[in-house]
Amino acid sequence: MKGYAMLRIGETGWIEKERPECGPLDAIIRPLAVSPCTSDVHTVWEGAIGERENMILGHEGCGIVEEVGSLVKDFKVGDRIMVAAITPDWGSLEAQSGYPMHSNGMLAGWKFSNFKDGVFGEYFHVNEADSNLALLPDEISPEEACMLADMVPTGFHGVELADIQFGDTVLVIGIGPVGLMAVAGANLRGAARIIAVGSRPVTIEAAKGYGATDFISYKDGPIDEQVLDLTNGKGVDRIVIAGGDVSTFEPAIKALKPAGKIGNVNYLGGGVYIQIPRVEWGVGMGHKQIVGGLMPGGRLRMEKLSQLVVNKKLDLNPLITHRFNGFEHVEDALFLMKDKPKDLIKPVVTI
Amino acid sequence: MKGYAMLRIGETGWIEKERPECGPLDAIIRPLAVSPCTSDVHTVWEGAIGERENMILGHEGCGIVEEVGSLVKDFKVGDRIMVAAITPDWGSLEAQSGYPMHSNGMLAGWKFSNFKDGVFGEYFHVNEADSNLALLPDEISPEEACMLADMVPTGFHGVELADIQFGDTVLVIGIGPVGLMAVAGANLRGAARIIAVGSRPVTIEAAKGYGATDFISYKDGPIDEQVLDLTNGKGVDRIVIAGGDVSTFEPAIKALKPAGKIGNVNYLGGGVYIQIPRVEWGVGMGHKQIVGGLMPGGRLRMEKLSQLVVNKKLDLNPLITHRFNGFEHVEDALFLMKDKPKDLIKPVVTI
Amino acid sequence: MKGYAMLRIGETGWIEKERPECGPLDAIIRPLAVSPCTSDVHTVWEGAIGERENMILGHEGCGIVEEVGSLVKDFKVGDRIMVAAITPDWGSLEAQSGYPMHSNGMLAGWKFSNFKDGVFGEYFHVNEADSNLALLPDEISPEEACMLADMVPTGFHGVELADIQFGDTVLVIGIGPVGLMAVAGANLRGAARIIAVGSRPVTIEAAKGYGATDFISYKDGPIDEQVLDLTNGKGVDRIVIAGGDVSTFEPAIKALKPAGKIGNVNYLGGGVYIQIPRVEWGVGMGHKQIVGGLMPGGRLRMEKLSQLVVNKKLDLNPLITHRFNGFEHVEDALFLMKDKPKDLIKPVVTI
Amino acid sequence: MKGYAMLRIGETGWIEKERPECGPLDAIIRPLAVSPCTSDVHTVWEGAIGERENMILGHEGCGIVEEVGSLVKDFKVGDRIMVAAITPDWGSLEAQSGYPMHSNGMLAGWKFSNFKDGVFGEYFHVNEADSNLALLPDEISPEEACMLADMVPTGFHGVELADIQFGDTVLVIGIGPVGLMAVAGANLRGAARIIAVGSRPVTIEAAKGYGATDFISYKDGPIDEQVLDLTNGKGVDRIVIAGGDVSTFEPAIKALKPAGKIGNVNYLGGGVYIQIPRVEWGVGMGHKQIVGGLMPGGRLRMEKLSQLVVNKKLDLNPLITHRFNGFEHVEDALFLMKDKPKDLIKPVVTI
Repeated sequence: MKGYAMLRIGETGWIEKERPECGPLDAIIRPLAVSPCTSDVHTVWEGAIGERENMILGHEGCGIVEEVGSLVKDFKVGDRIMVAAITPDWGSLEAQSGYPMHSNGMLAGWKFSNFKDGVFGEYFHVNEADSNLALLPDEISPEEACMLADMVPTGFHGVELADIQFGDTVLVIGIGPVGLMAVAGANLRGAARIIAVGSRPVTIEAAKGYGATDFISYKDGPIDEQVLDLTNGKGVDRIVIAGGDVSTFEPAIKALKPAGKIGNVNYLGGGVYIQIPRVEWGVGMGHKQIVGGLMPGGRLRMEKLSQLVVNKKLDLNPLITHRFNGFEHVEDALFLMKDKPKDLIKPVVTI
Repeated sequence: MKGYAMLRIGETGWIEKERPECGPLDAIIRPLAVSPCTSDVHTVWEGAIGERENMILGHEGCGIVEEVGSLVKDFKVGDRIMVAAITPDWGSLEAQSGYPMHSNGMLAGWKFSNFKDGVFGEYFHVNEADSNLALLPDEISPEEACMLADMVPTGFHGVELADIQFGDTVLVIGIGPVGLMAVAGANLRGAARIIAVGSRPVTIEAAKGYGATDFISYKDGPIDEQVLDLTNGKGVDRIVIAGGDVSTFEPAIKALKPAGKIGNVNYLGGGVYIQIPRVEWGVGMGHKQIVGGLMPGGRLRMEKLSQLVVNKKLDLNPLITHRFNGFEHVEDALFLMKDKPKDLIKPVVTI
Repeated sequence: MKGYAMLRIGETGWIEKERPECGPLDAIIRPLAVSPCTSDVHTVWEGAIGERENMILGHEGCGIVEEVGSLVKDFKVGDRIMVAAITPDWGSLEAQSGYPMHSNGMLAGWKFSNFKDGVFGEYFHVNEADSNLALLPDEISPEEACMLADMVPTGFHGVELADIQFGDTVLVIGIGPVGLMAVAGANLRGAARIIAVGSRPVTIEAAKGYGATDFISYKDGPIDEQVLDLTNGKGVDRIVIAGGDVSTFEPAIKALKPAGKIGNVNYLGGGVYIQIPRVEWGVGMGHKQIVGGLMPGGRLRMEKLSQLVVNKKLDLNPLITHRFNGFEHVEDALFLMKDKPKDLIKPVVTI
Repeated sequence: MKGYAMLRIGETGWIEKERPECGPLDAIIRPLAVSPCTSDVHTVWEGAIGERENMILGHEGCGIVEEVGSLVKDFKVGDRIMVAAITPDWGSLEAQSGYPMHSNGMLAGWKFSNFKDGVFGEYFHVNEADSNLALLPDEISPEEACMLADMVPTGFHGVELADIQFGDTVLVIGIGPVGLMAVAGANLRGAARIIAVGSRPVTIEAAKGYGATDFISYKDGPIDEQVLDLTNGKGVDRIVIAGGDVSTFEPAIKALKPAGKIGNVNYLGGGVYIQIPRVEWGVGMGHKQIVGGLMPGGRLRMEKLSQLVVNKKLDLNPLITHRFNGFEHVEDALFLMKDKPKDLIKPVVTI
């Protein structure tokens, strides 16, 4: 079969591979739509997860069941399905402890385009199909399903980690597609005021639609100073970090109230240390909680989050700025993600 | 001063009383707007909290500070303020444990029109003013502030007790004004599907606006059967009870998934026992959590919830169906609440 | 193979059955020790879960791996293993939501001597072996491992459900073996005062050893009155219910402080309703939380709880009052459990 | 009155001051026993909280009520009382949000020997007496009460922040008196294995008594490597940091499992940044939660924790290695704390 792959760090291209084999618990899927992620860009051009050779890229997609293993009960050939970017091993000790994304190792629930071939192939493989697939509802388009694979659950997980409460003032740092979903999630979680950090008009417009109430830009000075100005020097209750780098935590801590919480869902691609400023962290005793986490995947979460779309609580179309038709455009979509033109949020390729 | 009072069980009328005295931590407020509550009706005509003589009614209001005690720091004469129906003793052991509404005794954070004169007077008294008053923002009308005194924090507390999560299917039993705020709160908390139990067109219309997706009526058969029909026999993830009586818990338990949660904010005025059906409660082991609670009051919560209105995340006007002008109409508003005409949600009296 | 079975309601006996088959994810175990449970008595002589014919009894045991399925990775023939009474389907939606004991249906994580043959056979079957078995540490005897199968995790789950905090005053209702483990768990969770309800000297002695500080007996009057006497009328912070019946919740609610929590782990075998007294439940608003739940099973929990024994934080020997040697004594042990002589806590049969 | 004070950074001595005045909500206490804290040493000789002139030192003490304000209800002259080092303003917004230690500002619940004179005077002042005093039970000696003022609630708060669960493997970094109470708290919270980092025989002996199961020393190599060796490369579930400095977080993160939690109660006296190693923190997505917090103070917590001593669940005598008699020995005790002889855990001065 054909697939669009990382050939080695810094290089991509079309390759031929064997169709993946289907174990007794697994499924083989033929994609209906796929979308590239900034992580694919990190993986290829920054070598963020180290060398990979001839690995098919992509972890955002949906499709049609082509084959199921002998122990699969709930899905059959021909079913239209969604699947999250994270496909845990549900029996692992980590999943038993409530953290399936770290099943059998830190971050090891992330398999597509990391430990195995991703979704940019004519077929892709899903482990533990009964637990990691979800039926695609009629009300959801394949393009929207791609947004449900990673952008929605990741942005919303930032909101969960930050533990947003009714009436909170929330800072969302970074309003690319994950940050936009963090804005939408904060809004759907009852935040009163949502301060978004971003500067591109296309994302600011989308963020307004998703519920952001205030905007600040890196270009206008330190984030923490702008936030303190906007909040009478008090700072915010909660922060979701969905962009930036290891240096982003310093202004975040400075902009956060005592007993506030930071939820990070940004993949920190470089740097040795995240630096937490001692004094503003209350000399160790300010109860400013810091947690960052890979989103949980799996069927239940996919089913639940998709119901927000079915019931019109969440509109994913503002995320999709570029639409392609035909498998061959996977390459164009990926390079669009790499080059990030001004008007881009997310591209999707329908197959 | 003049006040509209419960004279004894079953009887109300205007009375003359001394203006309340202001202790060193307290404030005296002159009302700008007040609203009667179904609880006032329970108190007077059902004797739900026992005999009370010549007690001024009302616990939903806002006003202007007329006097402050010598130890009050943050408020001064002339400030326009909001105040919750529940005004805790913040230093009590119960408040220290996180349950201010039970300060110095179960439910004893509820003082207005229970332990002391309420807000239907020319003046009313607020204990611990720095902790129980909140400034009325310019963007909020006195009428809206009345809704923030009880309907919003009570309905939203049901949502907090039921611990609603992204994508949940939620049942809201009862869509009077508290139930409507439970619908709005469930929606603002990320519920995907909100099944509302109610039959009056005026409330159904309002519930739709607040995010309800499905409607059922007591008149069409047992609630649990209707809910199971709507959910392929699976039941709901969460339930907020904002109406009904002690018998309401049986269909609720039957309509709830294993490991689901019930948050009750309905004042149960009569009956000896709440009856939990043993089998559907998993013979004691189904993890169907039952909790009911008086809303927390106080300044912080009032400030935070009011920010939802200021930032246009929550529109309170659909709650207010009847508006009066002039203190003398308190009586009309109360009798409206007692008689519950078809088109009523809440009346408010501006003074 | 031979097994000791429920022939029908009210009747038990030895039967011959096929050795269970081992699916690709499963294991077949040869028992080293087994113990009967009060649940077995309920199942047979009260018909608590309905009719069962020729079903091998028992859900507390440990053993040696005799066979493993082709997909099992972490266990091999000859391993000495422990297994919990509850063996969930870990990929199920319920397990994904954090409630594996309800995998694929309320209480359906309970399989042994409920949906399939139990451990009182020459061999028994374990589903999802990698996720439900745990290696038996050298420091733990087979007899102790039997206590870890159900008594420990169930009693400790009551403590988890009641959410016991440092310095709490806790009431444990019922001090059979599960209640004793609730006492031990409350003690290990930082309770200051543990009031135990029981009257048999053998259990009172054991409860003292496990940390109970006060004792009351059903025979000396209503529990709630005795508890209020012991606590200056204030009641307790937390309650674990590990005995009694549907009527036990009334005194429990009466003995509980506002905002207290009840964790029930008692299997309620009969009665239509659990009755919650309306007034003492704060007319629906007292924040007295009620939850009851089947213990979670699985490998991780077994591994973690067994470490308490390995590290001498928990001594299980006081639970074991009667020891038998030889498979044929399973019958004696079961009838001992049925007849409950004065000096019995738990019998164990080593094979 | 006489008091032992910080005269300026680096200098201490006896001074004469006016007896503190008693506001309407306050109490004046005559100490029965006091104890110096390492924080006093930081404050004086490291200038950790900046310059202070003629400020009476000390925040660990108990005493007799000498005077109460007109609004105090629950305490009277002559009562023997305990008081925590942290005495919050209970009506503040931060206390309403569940964080009384940050009342009216980050860490601002810490008043003694920080914002006002401490307990090393002939009299000391307690704000909000009804909420911050607790009666000294007959079963608790004044010396033990001093340990309840700071060592117990701080060490136990580390355990609460780290959210220790049944069967956890816990690392406690630093076993001075706070670390010892973290060990005792971890043990009382159900940890199975407690690895303590320390090297002085007197503290190792005490730690064993409080439940530590394994010991490692800074002197034997990096902490994280020793921990990974002890845990088959898996790391620990939870960490309490009760010693070290800003550099301690790096080995902590490295020694922690994915989804583990760190609770810091160590006052970080110097350094610009706490450095979190990016890779071992899961490139931002490992769910390794970091939180540090000042202990909550107040009456309820004091009452609850003291019940652990009354009921013999916690023995504080191993903490007290040096006992003085007479107010004039406050100076000796403080210098002992400064010089830290090998056999010191805590000195106490009975007055």
